[in-house]
Amino acid sequence: MSEIKVGIIMGSQSDWPTMKGAAEILDELGVAYETKIVSAHRTPDRLWEYGKTAVQRGLQVIIAGAGGAAHLPGMMASKTRVPVIGVPVQTRALSGVDSLYSIVQMPKGFPVATMAIGSAGGANAGLMAAAILALQDSALADRLEVWRAALSDSIPEEPRDE
Amino acid sequence: MSEIKVGIIMGSQSDWPTMKGAAEILDELGVAYETKIVSAHRTPDRLWEYGKTAVQRGLQVIIAGAGGAAHLPGMMASKTRVPVIGVPVQTRALSGVDSLYSIVQMPKGFPVATMAIGSAGGANAGLMAAAILALQDSALADRLEVWRAALSDSIPEEPRDE
Amino acid sequence: MSEIKVGIIMGSQSDWPTMKGAAEILDELGVAYETKIVSAHRTPDRLWEYGKTAVQRGLQVIIAGAGGAAHLPGMMASKTRVPVIGVPVQTRALSGVDSLYSIVQMPKGFPVATMAIGSAGGANAGLMAAAILALQDSALADRLEVWRAALSDSIPEEPRDE
Amino acid sequence: MSEIKVGIIMGSQSDWPTMKGAAEILDELGVAYETKIVSAHRTPDRLWEYGKTAVQRGLQVIIAGAGGAAHLPGMMASKTRVPVIGVPVQTRALSGVDSLYSIVQMPKGFPVATMAIGSAGGANAGLMAAAILALQDSALADRLEVWRAALSDSIPEEPRDE
Amino acid sequence: MSEIKVGIIMGSQSDWPTMKGAAEILDELGVAYETKIVSAHRTPDRLWEYGKTAVQRGLQVIIAGAGGAAHLPGMMASKTRVPVIGVPVQTRALSGVDSLYSIVQMPKGFPVATMAIGSAGGANAGLMAAAILALQDSALADRLEVWRAALSDSIPEEPRDE
Amino acid sequence: MSEIKVGIIMGSQSDWPTMKGAAEILDELGVAYETKIVSAHRTPDRLWEYGKTAVQRGLQVIIAGAGGAAHLPGMMASKTRVPVIGVPVQTRALSGVDSLYSIVQMPKGFPVATMAIGSAGGANAGLMAAAILALQDSALADRLEVWRAALSDSIPEEPRDE
Amino acid sequence: MSEIKVGIIMGSQSDWPTMKGAAEILDELGVAYETKIVSAHRTPDRLWEYGKTAVQRGLQVIIAGAGGAAHLPGMMASKTRVPVIGVPVQTRALSGVDSLYSIVQMPKGFPVATMAIGSAGGANAGLMAAAILALQDSALADRLEVWRAALSDSIPEEPRDE
Amino acid sequence: MSEIKVGIIMGSQSDWPTMKGAAEILDELGVAYETKIVSAHRTPDRLWEYGKTAVQRGLQVIIAGAGGAAHLPGMMASKTRVPVIGVPVQTRALSGVDSLYSIVQMPKGFPVATMAIGSAGGANAGLMAAAILALQDSALADRLEVWRAALSDSIPEEPRDE
Repeated sequence: MSEIKVGIIMGSQSDWPTMKGAAEILDELGVAYETKIVSAHRTPDRLWEYGKTAVQRGLQVIIAGAGGAAHLPGMMASKTRVPVIGVPVQTRALSGVDSLYSIVQMPKGFPVATMAIGSAGGANAGLMAAAILALQDSALADRLEVWRAALSDSIPEEPRDE
Repeated sequence: MSEIKVGIIMGSQSDWPTMKGAAEILDELGVAYETKIVSAHRTPDRLWEYGKTAVQRGLQVIIAGAGGAAHLPGMMASKTRVPVIGVPVQTRALSGVDSLYSIVQMPKGFPVATMAIGSAGGANAGLMAAAILALQDSALADRLEVWRAALSDSIPEEPRDE
Repeated sequence: MSEIKVGIIMGSQSDWPTMKGAAEILDELGVAYETKIVSAHRTPDRLWEYGKTAVQRGLQVIIAGAGGAAHLPGMMASKTRVPVIGVPVQTRALSGVDSLYSIVQMPKGFPVATMAIGSAGGANAGLMAAAILALQDSALADRLEVWRAALSDSIPEEPRDE
Repeated sequence: MSEIKVGIIMGSQSDWPTMKGAAEILDELGVAYETKIVSAHRTPDRLWEYGKTAVQRGLQVIIAGAGGAAHLPGMMASKTRVPVIGVPVQTRALSGVDSLYSIVQMPKGFPVATMAIGSAGGANAGLMAAAILALQDSALADRLEVWRAALSDSIPEEPRDE
Repeated sequence: MSEIKVGIIMGSQSDWPTMKGAAEILDELGVAYETKIVSAHRTPDRLWEYGKTAVQRGLQVIIAGAGGAAHLPGMMASKTRVPVIGVPVQTRALSGVDSLYSIVQMPKGFPVATMAIGSAGGANAGLMAAAILALQDSALADRLEVWRAALSDSIPEEPRDE
Repeated sequence: MSEIKVGIIMGSQSDWPTMKGAAEILDELGVAYETKIVSAHRTPDRLWEYGKTAVQRGLQVIIAGAGGAAHLPGMMASKTRVPVIGVPVQTRALSGVDSLYSIVQMPKGFPVATMAIGSAGGANAGLMAAAILALQDSALADRLEVWRAALSDSIPEEPRDE
Repeated sequence: MSEIKVGIIMGSQSDWPTMKGAAEILDELGVAYETKIVSAHRTPDRLWEYGKTAVQRGLQVIIAGAGGAAHLPGMMASKTRVPVIGVPVQTRALSGVDSLYSIVQMPKGFPVATMAIGSAGGANAGLMAAAILALQDSALADRLEVWRAALSDSIPEEPRDE
Repeated sequence: MSEIKVGIIMGSQSDWPTMKGAAEILDELGVAYETKIVSAHRTPDRLWEYGKTAVQRGLQVIIAGAGGAAHLPGMMASKTRVPVIGVPVQTRALSGVDSLYSIVQMPKGFPVATMAIGSAGGANAGLMAAAILALQDSALADRLEVWRAALSDSIPEEPRDE
């Protein structure tokens, strides 16, 4: 079985419907990954451990989703040089603007590659991870190109009434 | 000398003009405190250590200021049961709305007592810390009542042209 | 029965679903409290009375929830030195951003310890009250540590499909 | 001298540059007024007294300006049936959106007639007060019509380079 | 039958559920009113006529509700010195923030007394109209005081589970 | 001299620095225009007259700039079928978001072709007017194509330090 | 059959419910149009081709709807001098504010005539297109005037309970 | 000389002060890069060409900065599978919120790794590019670790008055 190169982590079970999109894309593209719940606030030591061992465990990309104060992606970026992709989960009161600001407005030194709020962001996190891995994996690069071409080909010429 | 009961921490030197207001209030009210730079992202281990030892060091309130993604107050709240007061520092692009959302929108389990954006918030963090300590220190309670009365008395009856 | 140390007040009956979270946490942690409807606008004299007698009645924390113009927490902070925790209730048109701004943007002199918008904020208000009381109640401090540890332990390792 | 029918109140001296616009309009229209600093938080009892005596003192309109949490207009509306006109003062971090929301989002029962943020709002508060008084003062009504006509006449046909 | 002193106008039939609150309050307080659909954009001449004849028809307050670009209240304020109360109707995409800004941000010269977004604003417009009329109608003033007292008296002491 | 086909109107002299950009573009492209101050609130009858005569006067495009409540473009669109281009002028407190919402959020029936906030919007209003006129003026179409090509050609290959 | 002068394009099938309003208006006014799905990101070459051939194909107006990052209208405006009308489609997390900003905030050189968010914007795009075409088609101008008059006539005098 | 692996592109010369931060970081870390002005709207064919040849030219990361409608990063992401990092440039009216939304809210299929608004985002784009390249360049990985450690070490223990 292929080595796990992508970690998909999230702050809570309730983030999974958003983050599942990343997993599905990686499945489609044949990229091995793991999924973990790592809460910045409820399991900070788990976060610490995950970040500290990411390089030695061979992780090449970490996808982190969180909502509200959404500290997980930024704290993970603080703990490891492995690229972190952040997914702002939509929230009840502020629609994910809180998540977006908390994830994207990182200070100099600790970038988080922020995606769109919600499910588009979840899926795109998977695609961004694949694009990064494809830089050193020409077969994956080919599969990604095919995926992108298929997406383009799927667009009909004209809208239809439903 | 009196024991240090309040820790004033901030993400960077640039937060000091905002946080100095807290220190000044505590000076006025005769409350001993320490000031530290503790960056959630740049010195996460310092944050960990600070949080883990807060109770045993006798800290009773932690005032944490940060701007932008502003993870310091929330991460500190994750590491200690000592009450954390958060001060959203005003930022250049988003005026501190990013700081505010990142600090106030904490998930269930880890409250941060959030103050106003900027210097009013800095000063009020000092007052809130004093109000908490005053619950077990009647002399401080008296000084706080005097401070509040003096503030009220300082308000003139009528506005004047300047 | 133990003495009431926490007052949970709210602007109207419609705030109760949000504020009930505070009561539930205090129940779990064994902290005695009272619940009152105190409307800043509809019952200002009740607010005045509540604020004026808070210290002598032995209240140590006041949790105040309100929505929209949300003047209750700030006015209570004006009337008593007892620490006031504010909970912005979610609103129909502005999702609680109005409540949040009205509660958190207090001027120098009268801090309100503001929580997250909505139910997370309600529960966290209870936790913040407990954390403040725990400073002088080591048994409560222990129960709070246990509560926090249990929250951390409740987080599963991996997300599951539902 | 004519009886004072309009009270211009404000939360602090720093609101005066905004509120002066109301005074100037009332001067232009020959309406007698008083100016007071009445802080909702720092001088709540002054607010109470002002509100309770407003009717018997013959006040017919109260213009209240405040910034940030801006509780003054709404609390005054709670204390008296005299119409309250609210002026949101521009603020540093949130540009007066906080003031606006705190003033305009009043619950059913206690309307505040909210004006624009900043100096346009200050001046318009004076005009609204005059329009209300003009309903029972035909001479003032005439002066107001003249003022409005003069404003219209002052508009040049074409813009000019400066 | 009593003379009509209040005009309740709105941009379209869809604003009626919001504006009905104003009518209901005026019914409760015994104030005669009329209701009209006057669209700033679709029936500008009706707006012109309404504004031009308002004074001579004896109108003393105009309540104008509108959503989105919401030009009705401001244009009416341009056409008559009769006080105009504006009600921002909640909208689908922008929740009434568009309505609020379009109504409240009037330039110097043409105030609109802006109420809260949505149904609270509709009801409060009726109360503000009554408060203005009460200045010259002591019986109405008494009824308004009674209404306000009844509102205060209706607030229970404690919240109840539902 | 060529016939005037474009009217550039604005709410006040203070809008001219923004609207001058439209005039400059039309000068560059050789399109005749007029400039007028037409205030929706201060000179509503001028607005009415301008709108009612626009078609017969041969106007083919009206460019209308305004700030704050910004009713001018929408009211003009109500009065004439001539296409109206709206320019949201930047404002002090709300940066032109108020202007933008008031101009763009028009109800079904009365479109305003809204441009960017501020000076980019002013210039683009001129370009949009030219593009509309170019549909029936092939010489202007050629000049517009040349203008566009020149803009593209003016872009250097690389950024330079300044 | 009449020549196609208006192209209605949109980023995806999901934009059709919004854009159908434009088609319906053009049907009502007897203006021939075509509808196409042209995704800026998924079918960029289709966008290129559409833009490059727009003039020679005789298109006089392009109506482009998109949501989120919403690059379609602006990119089309970059590729052709044919006037582009942009419709911001309402989005899940940000309600179409993202779409609005992405469409309206175009830099100098490439205006997009932006309409309201959502279905009002869709319909108004059709009306704006008709208004532009009516400049050279007096029969269409007459039909547009009739349409506008009918809209005005459809407004009842008074609101009715439903 | 080392092969160019990173392209730093921007919409206009005015974006350079923001984007220079990326170049400086890459200089510090010894990563070869090129800088180009590629305007989505003014030089769309340059964008097309750049995107189409990115893979074959050996580019491994593209950093794209833009302000306002900010279509450059998203359009580049549409044209190449090379990872695109987007930097929202701060804008005058909307402070870069427009840039942020236009860059981050990409639809499924075309992720842009979005950074913070303004100069922190510019520098972080360089760091994210380095982190991606470091996955296949252990010497660069070491230099990045050193850079990160030096940043942490540069933080003083305590704030100082200035």
